[in-house]
Amino acid sequence: MSFNTFGHVFRVTTWGESHGPALGCTVDGCPPNVPLDEAALQHWLDRRKPGQNKYTTQRREADEVRILSGVFEGRTTGTPIQLMIENTDQRSKDYGDIAETFRPGHADITYWQKYGIRDYRGGGRSSARETAARVAAGGVARAALAALVPGLAITGYMTRMGAHGIDGPRDMAEIDRNPFWVPSAAAAESWADYLDALRKSGNSCGAEIEITAAGVPAGLGAPVYGKLDTDLAAAMMSINAVKGVEIGEGMAAARLTGADNADEIFLGNADAPTYSSNHAGGILGGISTGQDVVVRFAVKPTSSILKPRASITKSGRPTEVVTKGRHDPCVGIRAVPVGEAMMACVLLDHLLLDRAQTGGHRGQIG
Amino acid sequence: MSFNTFGHVFRVTTWGESHGPALGCTVDGCPPNVPLDEAALQHWLDRRKPGQNKYTTQRREADEVRILSGVFEGRTTGTPIQLMIENTDQRSKDYGDIAETFRPGHADITYWQKYGIRDYRGGGRSSARETAARVAAGGVARAALAALVPGLAITGYMTRMGAHGIDGPRDMAEIDRNPFWVPSAAAAESWADYLDALRKSGNSCGAEIEITAAGVPAGLGAPVYGKLDTDLAAAMMSINAVKGVEIGEGMAAARLTGADNADEIFLGNADAPTYSSNHAGGILGGISTGQDVVVRFAVKPTSSILKPRASITKSGRPTEVVTKGRHDPCVGIRAVPVGEAMMACVLLDHLLLDRAQTGGHRGQIG
Amino acid sequence: MSFNTFGHVFRVTTWGESHGPALGCTVDGCPPNVPLDEAALQHWLDRRKPGQNKYTTQRREADEVRILSGVFEGRTTGTPIQLMIENTDQRSKDYGDIAETFRPGHADITYWQKYGIRDYRGGGRSSARETAARVAAGGVARAALAALVPGLAITGYMTRMGAHGIDGPRDMAEIDRNPFWVPSAAAAESWADYLDALRKSGNSCGAEIEITAAGVPAGLGAPVYGKLDTDLAAAMMSINAVKGVEIGEGMAAARLTGADNADEIFLGNADAPTYSSNHAGGILGGISTGQDVVVRFAVKPTSSILKPRASITKSGRPTEVVTKGRHDPCVGIRAVPVGEAMMACVLLDHLLLDRAQTGGHRGQIG
Amino acid sequence: MSFNTFGHVFRVTTWGESHGPALGCTVDGCPPNVPLDEAALQHWLDRRKPGQNKYTTQRREADEVRILSGVFEGRTTGTPIQLMIENTDQRSKDYGDIAETFRPGHADITYWQKYGIRDYRGGGRSSARETAARVAAGGVARAALAALVPGLAITGYMTRMGAHGIDGPRDMAEIDRNPFWVPSAAAAESWADYLDALRKSGNSCGAEIEITAAGVPAGLGAPVYGKLDTDLAAAMMSINAVKGVEIGEGMAAARLTGADNADEIFLGNADAPTYSSNHAGGILGGISTGQDVVVRFAVKPTSSILKPRASITKSGRPTEVVTKGRHDPCVGIRAVPVGEAMMACVLLDHLLLDRAQTGGHRGQIG
Repeated sequence: MSFNTFGHVFRVTTWGESHGPALGCTVDGCPPNVPLDEAALQHWLDRRKPGQNKYTTQRREADEVRILSGVFEGRTTGTPIQLMIENTDQRSKDYGDIAETFRPGHADITYWQKYGIRDYRGGGRSSARETAARVAAGGVARAALAALVPGLAITGYMTRMGAHGIDGPRDMAEIDRNPFWVPSAAAAESWADYLDALRKSGNSCGAEIEITAAGVPAGLGAPVYGKLDTDLAAAMMSINAVKGVEIGEGMAAARLTGADNADEIFLGNADAPTYSSNHAGGILGGISTGQDVVVRFAVKPTSSILKPRASITKSGRPTEVVTKGRHDPCVGIRAVPVGEAMMACVLLDHLLLDRAQTGGHRGQIG
Repeated sequence: MSFNTFGHVFRVTTWGESHGPALGCTVDGCPPNVPLDEAALQHWLDRRKPGQNKYTTQRREADEVRILSGVFEGRTTGTPIQLMIENTDQRSKDYGDIAETFRPGHADITYWQKYGIRDYRGGGRSSARETAARVAAGGVARAALAALVPGLAITGYMTRMGAHGIDGPRDMAEIDRNPFWVPSAAAAESWADYLDALRKSGNSCGAEIEITAAGVPAGLGAPVYGKLDTDLAAAMMSINAVKGVEIGEGMAAARLTGADNADEIFLGNADAPTYSSNHAGGILGGISTGQDVVVRFAVKPTSSILKPRASITKSGRPTEVVTKGRHDPCVGIRAVPVGEAMMACVLLDHLLLDRAQTGGHRGQIG
Repeated sequence: MSFNTFGHVFRVTTWGESHGPALGCTVDGCPPNVPLDEAALQHWLDRRKPGQNKYTTQRREADEVRILSGVFEGRTTGTPIQLMIENTDQRSKDYGDIAETFRPGHADITYWQKYGIRDYRGGGRSSARETAARVAAGGVARAALAALVPGLAITGYMTRMGAHGIDGPRDMAEIDRNPFWVPSAAAAESWADYLDALRKSGNSCGAEIEITAAGVPAGLGAPVYGKLDTDLAAAMMSINAVKGVEIGEGMAAARLTGADNADEIFLGNADAPTYSSNHAGGILGGISTGQDVVVRFAVKPTSSILKPRASITKSGRPTEVVTKGRHDPCVGIRAVPVGEAMMACVLLDHLLLDRAQTGGHRGQIG
Repeated sequence: MSFNTFGHVFRVTTWGESHGPALGCTVDGCPPNVPLDEAALQHWLDRRKPGQNKYTTQRREADEVRILSGVFEGRTTGTPIQLMIENTDQRSKDYGDIAETFRPGHADITYWQKYGIRDYRGGGRSSARETAARVAAGGVARAALAALVPGLAITGYMTRMGAHGIDGPRDMAEIDRNPFWVPSAAAAESWADYLDALRKSGNSCGAEIEITAAGVPAGLGAPVYGKLDTDLAAAMMSINAVKGVEIGEGMAAARLTGADNADEIFLGNADAPTYSSNHAGGILGGISTGQDVVVRFAVKPTSSILKPRASITKSGRPTEVVTKGRHDPCVGIRAVPVGEAMMACVLLDHLLLDRAQTGGHRGQIG
């Protein structure tokens, strides 16, 4: 994993800047004969698309994805799949004032320090727009997973928005019924009020997202530096604004005792192991157990806020930055489909990698 | 990063099992002409070595490292550096009883499910003994960093042991004065009592470790899939028993507002930016800012405990597992030098990668 | 190097099929601040463009390259550079008859056997059209080399066309004066007659191409599996229809004695070594010597010929294949700019790789 | 493929210098449950071992290989296999005189120029001793191939020694009956005289080696930059002293017409295609056809000869180099088992890679 490519054998290389003519990705290593068309990818892109409600940026992007290669007569051919999304709502003039100024919390200053040049329009390459390409790639991964592992299901949702977590039980059926993908009708309501208030005050907040994958076969993961959890951690941490990643019990594992933390093992139907609990998040020794794979990550609050923050210009002059314009008050909302996409890519990659090394053969139990 | 190799251009491939004749690593891509000898590496290995006090496993391993290649007359030559540590205290007979049984919380079951064969002695490849090779590799990375970036300093310490965090201010001078590498004399004392009690009851606990690197140049990191934080997350998550990784504010970033989270920017001496705070953990957009790089990770409690836990055998028979023998009640303690080693490897790798892409030239400020 | 990506740190991923909507490449790892625009790339693409004279396919492709990312205000930014070339002269109907038939000498049968699906239109991914993307990527590499190593010059030319080599001395000034890029006016004349006759008879012929690079700094190459000659061999062998690659003396080295083959070393101006000869082709131990780097490769004759050849259909029925239509009688001609492009990419990659490992510092002589 | 690692998913990292304490390799990605022991590897190492007859260096190396990891109770476990060969006949004093002098034709000068330091003893890392590790790795690959593709057979032999090729028909049964692995009793005799004379005169000669693999399944190869021929070319070119690589017709393809070069296709038994000839060397479009895979490479004459050659010292002083001592008059002889090993590694790697991408499913014919 390096530079602008991730994955071992299912490899995704994304390209493009926020305000360039287009962005996209090359998906290499997809198995052949997977049914795929633009509509299937568009479905996922539409979930991430900005401007769908008042809680996400009002930038209007159609985010229409085109398949330029690698698919023939509705099926993948095993050759690289090029996906392109044209940028249509660029409004570069909006961003002229940040050419010389480094916005606090943004990558403006580090891109400048590293490269000595930056496409300052909308954050250029460091913009969260890059994640549209991830979602498109994730759509390819989902199509391949659907063909190879029927029943595998990936679900993403928010578990925290700023000061607010979820009180009471989770109801997964609610996820698609609210703009926050939160599995709780009550939370959706209170979060809406909270975010409205934040947005009006020109402030923003962070978020916690959880992605689960059910139906993952046991045996995926390539220890010790291609562990499934290692690659998931890298995948999630590479998403813009993510500051923490947890598997299963996560950071809270530090507080537990061994007696509390053990997932006891039993033998269920069809000689498949079952577990008393899932502190491990479905991964032991870097290899999937067959339980739900559970990943959580935290997204920091949007750095573009109305409250003036001290900063400097390229020439070293002190200044104040106030960001008006079309920004998500909680960028974490749109990180949900991105996290799902990364989960899909990592799982497919490991499924293929496992085929390479073991041929998919498994040690039998019972 | 994949399989048993990590790093992009400074590449470390570890090999070896807990109870095989030896373990070690091949370090490829180290710059030439770096002063290096076995004593320098041994210094770091001795920090991680088991059996040094009553809080770590009583397995007696000398952990003596030999340099088999890549060093000539006390300096690296630019060719692969092979480091070997012989296993001397193997006692394979201790482990015969786990040949057929899957220990809860261990990788026994997943290695079996993946490979259909496993070296069950002491966990084989999934044993934390593998981390000795990481510490050795980290010693090479430190030597190269010392030559290339004078003043860079990496410090690891524990910030939580099970139920106990650190109350009161941190005192970094205390780190080397207690067996827990905790920056607090008071905490060291209360933690000792806590761990003694746990150990005697046959229980164990988790831990939280923080690694900081001061003096890291701005500009390291290869967005967007070789970001510095991405690679640090992968590096830490690949350590045995780690379940969560945080950069800077970490998971708590989800709770903050944008106004709280902003690190304001000022111009300090020598046209170097300074910041009002370090919520970002020294990384913006995946690139180092020049502030301290701050990584935290959680280690789950040792799964080997005296309390009986339900499990199954390879043939599917229900059983109970009680682990006697020489185990760390808090395996997180010895994760401190491992985390430091991973930090060193990642930083050197990115330093070299940055030389490749930018030649180390930087955009100027002021 | 794998799948559809080549290069270690200067990485090129090509995508696209002969008759899809477009093809192109993602160039990752280019240094920032390199002056680059579409005109510079178009210059190289025009050299490879089909339909320029009667000796190359009459397919009419504008081969206009667009830069979609990674360049801002005329300079590279260090982010991925996406280059796209739209296919304009597709005429898919020409190819309908090969949907079921495997053309001898083509990849039709192996793509089918591997993938169980193939885009049969014009060879799909296996078409030499893919090399347009290489030439575009080579243009980026040349731009970066021009900025980093002034004076480095890459020259490609044909040294054999079927039965005809070059008699008499080479005159490099002739290369750009004839359609074969042959460094000999006399050869150009006789080759033209030869190829005319072949073309009219519906036959084709092979070719030998030599690529030299002058001004390559000593010290490039990453032994032992990233040797400069190793990577050049891979780069050239990956070009369509190439069957052999030679460095310096090449296959003829097998016939020599040690006394004949030795390149004796002297000390020239500025403490730079000079050599009595260049049997080594500018590479010793996989590392450049500072002499001209000399690579040669053989391209097999175009498999698309008028003479009927026996083959089978997908359903196993015997058939005969006669290929009419727009094909190069000597596909090797257009391999010259492709070989140059690969040389440029490999040299830049190794220049960057060398910066990573050695910082570009050199052992001094004298 | 880079630095000291080759392979995509079956990855071999070699390490060690000619006169260090040991050399070896880490083999990563080998499938689990492959029967493997030291004797199996030793068999192949003994073929390459020096000092077996008067035509190879009289350096006495036992070349005993030890398996340090990755094998448990006689079978591979899927974890990294560390193979170590101790250097026993080092005689470093022999080499003291070359500490300051660059031997013509050797990598002395380029290692110095690149790294500014070199282990000059016996060529250090650039010594052909590194190939012992390749042969050991090749033994692992052969064991895995034997388990996965019964009937696959790799055969290497010399087809030229300096001025002498093979007159008359080849007799493969002769290969193991002469010290040159030449498939001709008559050639073996005349070559022996030739080499004796060369050796006595202190001269040396080059060689041409051919490696064939029969029983290779159709469908191996990952176009376009992981083509089977691309990887074979890289693998062979990475062997010490190799200057040219050919697939099938090789460089001679440049001289042919399309009518001559076509391998016509028929349908044989079991719906497997058969071919009228094998100009392609078993590879079309970078993918195996099911025919024999045929690779040839040229090894330059040993540079260590008695005839004085002009050179310079590190301080720039002119000198003459005469190499006495224990050198192979035709280093190509021992390249035969090395070439076989590389073939085995590349084929296994592609077999695994193909499993990853296609699951080993094939398009059916007939």
